[in-house]
Amino acid sequence: MSRFRHATPGGKFELARIDPGDRPCSTGKKAGDRQAVEALAVELDALQNKFWADRRYRLLVVLQGQDTSGKDGTLRHVFGRMSPLGVRTTGWKAPTENERAHDFLWRIHAAVPSDGEIVVFNRSHYEDVLVPVVGGQLEGKALQQRYAQINDFERLLCETGTVVLKFMLHISRDEQRKRLQERLDDPEKYWKFDPADLKAREHWDDYQRAYQEAIRATGTPWAPWIVVPADSKTHRNLMIATVLQATLKGLGLRFPPLPQALKGVKVA
Amino acid sequence: MSRFRHATPGGKFELARIDPGDRPCSTGKKAGDRQAVEALAVELDALQNKFWADRRYRLLVVLQGQDTSGKDGTLRHVFGRMSPLGVRTTGWKAPTENERAHDFLWRIHAAVPSDGEIVVFNRSHYEDVLVPVVGGQLEGKALQQRYAQINDFERLLCETGTVVLKFMLHISRDEQRKRLQERLDDPEKYWKFDPADLKAREHWDDYQRAYQEAIRATGTPWAPWIVVPADSKTHRNLMIATVLQATLKGLGLRFPPLPQALKGVKVA
Repeated sequence: MSRFRHATPGGKFELARIDPGDRPCSTGKKAGDRQAVEALAVELDALQNKFWADRRYRLLVVLQGQDTSGKDGTLRHVFGRMSPLGVRTTGWKAPTENERAHDFLWRIHAAVPSDGEIVVFNRSHYEDVLVPVVGGQLEGKALQQRYAQINDFERLLCETGTVVLKFMLHISRDEQRKRLQERLDDPEKYWKFDPADLKAREHWDDYQRAYQEAIRATGTPWAPWIVVPADSKTHRNLMIATVLQATLKGLGLRFPPLPQALKGVKVA
Repeated sequence: MSRFRHATPGGKFELARIDPGDRPCSTGKKAGDRQAVEALAVELDALQNKFWADRRYRLLVVLQGQDTSGKDGTLRHVFGRMSPLGVRTTGWKAPTENERAHDFLWRIHAAVPSDGEIVVFNRSHYEDVLVPVVGGQLEGKALQQRYAQINDFERLLCETGTVVLKFMLHISRDEQRKRLQERLDDPEKYWKFDPADLKAREHWDDYQRAYQEAIRATGTPWAPWIVVPADSKTHRNLMIATVLQATLKGLGLRFPPLPQALKGVKVA
């Protein structure tokens, strides 16, 4: 999986070095890539069934990325073939009053996967080291402390049977412009347009920096970041599906055996 | 939808009159039925996207049926194409100590869909008018009261924007025998075998009666029961997908319009 892992712990990772238009997993042809995504989606469905049957692991997938980077599309095209039995997604919005009355990982912890479950976070606790950083309310020691809290939390998950994968969907500023405009122009996409996205867009560079810092500080062996060039939607799906497939296959999943006492039983 | 609704409110519905091997939605050919399910699954994916975008409705789907009747298979084949964004499933087990310390609808209410969401209950509050009835702990006035509480609860859901569909997956006793045996014989299905299912099977007729009574008492205009002949898995999927498609299409879903203030905006 090393060719996908664009970030390493404590590294000097530079986000600007990754071209959002790059396609490291591509077959070279768009139609070929589409077919590959389709084939992987079918394979992932079978792997998820086995993951659910096995019950020895839990899988937490974090999707992060600037607005329009393709988090919803990933849910539909990569996870959309799996059964809702054992797959769950949580979309994280600004915390409610009650959530703000707790530590920032409180609501997150409540939503992590149980045995056999695959949970996808559409945004996550990483918003808490992005939004306030860009807003200027969080920096220095307080920010470093929060990174460390995230690392400790994710280590706990890992040590107790949860596989954690964090994908940063990396698009270019120009691709975002196109996609936002599309939401304003296509009647089937109006509902996706949020004026707040224009505000966030004004802070594009600040967000890029905040992402880079977060990835540097929290790209760990137990919860790696995978930066996904995402200007091409097909490639984005292909790369995420490929990493997922490799991860699930690497677990050596198995269907549980029949208890001795049940062997040879005939149903009357 | 009347040809699918095998139960009517206050009716003299007789479960035994519905042949589990019947295939009222069939094209007449197995391959044709499979293709129809596949086509419907793709259409349901698009409808779910619109349902989610629209946000004016909520959809609660209840799946009930004896062990092996195909609840999990329905989740995979009918709902498995939709995006996990906006689709959620809850599998109801025996209540925990804390859940038992509340009324029987408390945990159920907490899990109902929010705006735009489709929630599928894999088993449901109907277990509370089946298991204790078969066990002899619930009958007479107390049972009638519970049916009424369910009807009131479901009316509340309906009156506040939730579409409720209840499917009873109806299999024959012999088909259950075959399917349980398969779980004992096929290594990929061992994990599905639960010895408790053999115990429940001994009370087959009692469960059939309890289902019939529950369907008679809770088949309402606002939350109809649809009894699905389910000896054929393909037909089961076809019938449920057909009802879902008709229901979703009947809602007149629409993508929300663009607010006036955003018209003509160009993204910089």
